[in-house]
Amino acid sequence: MYDTGTTNRKKLIIVGGGAVGLAVATSVKRHGNYEITVFSSDPHAAYSQCGIPFVISGEIEGFDKLLLKQKDFFPEMGIDLRLDTTVESLDLKDRTVFVKGEKHHFDKLVIATGSRPAVSDNLRQGAELDNVFTLRSLEDGKRIDRSLENAKNVVIIGGGGIGVEIAVAAAKRGLRTILVNRSISLLSHNIDQDMADIVQEHLESIGVDVLTGQSPHSINGKARVESVSIGGVDFPADVVIISAGALPETKLASDAGIEIGTTGGIIVNEHLQVRTKSGYDPDVYCGGECAQVQNFITGMPMLSQLASTARRMAGVIRNNLISRPTSFGPIVNPWAGAIGELQVGTVGITTRKAKQHRIKTVSGIAIGTTRAGYYPGSTRLFIKLLFSNRILVGAQVIGGEGVKERIDGLSLAIRKRTTLDELLSMETCYTPPMSMLIDPLTFAAQGALKKLPGSKK
Amino acid sequence: MYDTGTTNRKKLIIVGGGAVGLAVATSVKRHGNYEITVFSSDPHAAYSQCGIPFVISGEIEGFDKLLLKQKDFFPEMGIDLRLDTTVESLDLKDRTVFVKGEKHHFDKLVIATGSRPAVSDNLRQGAELDNVFTLRSLEDGKRIDRSLENAKNVVIIGGGGIGVEIAVAAAKRGLRTILVNRSISLLSHNIDQDMADIVQEHLESIGVDVLTGQSPHSINGKARVESVSIGGVDFPADVVIISAGALPETKLASDAGIEIGTTGGIIVNEHLQVRTKSGYDPDVYCGGECAQVQNFITGMPMLSQLASTARRMAGVIRNNLISRPTSFGPIVNPWAGAIGELQVGTVGITTRKAKQHRIKTVSGIAIGTTRAGYYPGSTRLFIKLLFSNRILVGAQVIGGEGVKERIDGLSLAIRKRTTLDELLSMETCYTPPMSMLIDPLTFAAQGALKKLPGSKK
Repeated sequence: MYDTGTTNRKKLIIVGGGAVGLAVATSVKRHGNYEITVFSSDPHAAYSQCGIPFVISGEIEGFDKLLLKQKDFFPEMGIDLRLDTTVESLDLKDRTVFVKGEKHHFDKLVIATGSRPAVSDNLRQGAELDNVFTLRSLEDGKRIDRSLENAKNVVIIGGGGIGVEIAVAAAKRGLRTILVNRSISLLSHNIDQDMADIVQEHLESIGVDVLTGQSPHSINGKARVESVSIGGVDFPADVVIISAGALPETKLASDAGIEIGTTGGIIVNEHLQVRTKSGYDPDVYCGGECAQVQNFITGMPMLSQLASTARRMAGVIRNNLISRPTSFGPIVNPWAGAIGELQVGTVGITTRKAKQHRIKTVSGIAIGTTRAGYYPGSTRLFIKLLFSNRILVGAQVIGGEGVKERIDGLSLAIRKRTTLDELLSMETCYTPPMSMLIDPLTFAAQGALKKLPGSKK
Repeated sequence: MYDTGTTNRKKLIIVGGGAVGLAVATSVKRHGNYEITVFSSDPHAAYSQCGIPFVISGEIEGFDKLLLKQKDFFPEMGIDLRLDTTVESLDLKDRTVFVKGEKHHFDKLVIATGSRPAVSDNLRQGAELDNVFTLRSLEDGKRIDRSLENAKNVVIIGGGGIGVEIAVAAAKRGLRTILVNRSISLLSHNIDQDMADIVQEHLESIGVDVLTGQSPHSINGKARVESVSIGGVDFPADVVIISAGALPETKLASDAGIEIGTTGGIIVNEHLQVRTKSGYDPDVYCGGECAQVQNFITGMPMLSQLASTARRMAGVIRNNLISRPTSFGPIVNPWAGAIGELQVGTVGITTRKAKQHRIKTVSGIAIGTTRAGYYPGSTRLFIKLLFSNRILVGAQVIGGEGVKERIDGLSLAIRKRTTLDELLSMETCYTPPMSMLIDPLTFAAQGALKKLPGSKK
């Protein structure tokens, strides 16, 4: 069991048991001399949130597979993990948090409260009906999974990463599935419309009805949901899943005087320390979805709702807690998702985002295959590259395989400020079971080159 | 049909109908004003040489799938392609080549004669026996394929890329397969022994008997091969395939006074023009396996026997021929191969190569998985990174999927002189069907960091 008797150890309190909270707890425990308490509002510890849609789809057998640690893991490590426990308030002057009426002193604090699902005002009442869900936690996933067992008609509100994954899952289960998306293009935060069209076509091919450019007017029913009104039509619905984005969970912090940025996320410096009106607090860190980070390309504040970013922030917080000053820099935020048979990935900025920030870009698109055309299992591969002043600033890839690895390479390429000319002369592998002779990346770069003023074909 | 009447067009002769020769011919034809003749000693035009082992293994149905162009393609383009035709000699002063006793004038010449299989002196006599093969051409592939139909025992001499691919093919066909390799490690030009051990283990698991650190003494038989003597033992053999490397085919060039480098390849400048004692010849180009190129890391001359390198050289030659001066720089030579269920890739230098060139390196190895551990289809992933002065100089990857794409990204990373610190802080994607939360690349970089003097764990 954990040791509470030692008084000369510093007290670290972590609020939040997600990707940041538990990673900081376990890695600091291994390397630092802290007494650690983690408060998590979730009843479960250490599970893969990102795996939930794939249990619902049947790819993964059962939610138990998502549990990453044995129940005893944290107490055996000496970490006091309090599940199902919400921190009520925080007093920075007093260096305490209040939990269930009790004060807990901290020397160091980590705020990793994550985010909560966004629900628009007009849907708030309908969201209270039975069989209307949002998806954040394992318990949410289990509830959705059970509700789908007896469902025929499912409406999914929001065509972001989770929305499209859940739509695939529902369609795979043979349900009549409607996906409604406010933007005219799916995954509009991740990819441009030309690429989103490919995703939409695939969703439709597996039986998802996709309604874009529309917002539901209301979710209707008595006790249980019965329909969703979209564009004047009532679509029958046994189950509704709202996946219309997430908002940083910052109330605890802002009530304590911690400053919130223009994105709605908690302001942090490069050491991930929070700011109050007295300046940055050297003892209070924040990471994950609730923290405001900086975009590598635009230089502007942004939120990253990726587990991979959260995990990297955890590493920086841990280093700073054990006196190895480390910075968290601007991000290119690489994302990948599995949408039926398609792998979709993106990194850097999209054309849409570039326009918002008045960044002039030139793009090139290539269509190729993931293996030699004659090789069994070859799938189509779409690559879009974005350049600004001949420097790579964004990439989007869709294909049947190898997409994550491509995006990772392009992630580094953007951070290294790779030029169009460097991409044109880059060396790529060739073997028929894994590639084309000339990688489509080269063709995408050539496509951008041709659009530049004064370029020869 | 091609036009031979026009006399004001310059005459381009290309010697060799492989990856360089035909790519130069077709792309120059599209963009330049040349009368083009290609002489190829091969009876077939435009096929995928790299696909041959996968027809033999049964992955690809039939050799016809490897033919990339219709028979009429070249004449219809106006290219005079002479198959099954060997150029006998070359006169640089006279600007002519001799073919079947006839002189052919050129204004520009491309030498793309490729390479020929290496056969050691002690095996030369046995190599003349029936059912002893080397593998270069489609015809070689067909002969091997037919011979295996009635075979029981196969011996493959040489454990390079083609050797291991053919060993897999023979084992898949249920034949008793012996692979004998002079080096104690398979793929010794591509990967280090620790990585080669993983490949060897896989080959053995699918039934290949691997003999490393041994060279055959002789290939024995009367008219047809009967056995191979290795280490004093006669191993029965119905079919023997010698895949013990390739030598640049340079006789035509060297007989004409073109200079040959220390690697045995034809010396070229950055425009891929050949050198004689009078200096570089602005009208005579050379590319592909017969040309000597420069290693990006060591700065030393080397040969690249990759179709992908050949194809890039073709692009440079084409540009120079149509008056767009373009350079071919030093290479990192990324290679990937499919060896049974394993994908293997490498780029930059290996530890072995570094030692030969007295380059001090530090390596890091990580073992991970290609998907979340709980996700179906996840396979083991091995990553080895090599750093010199904290700069990435080499990478080796083995896994069940996504290897080519990883190597491509690392290829660019090496060319961009990416530092260990940049790799440690790089951003990678995460989604359970395609990756681990923290990419093993990060762990490999951390592994190297720990070996550096004065590093903290």
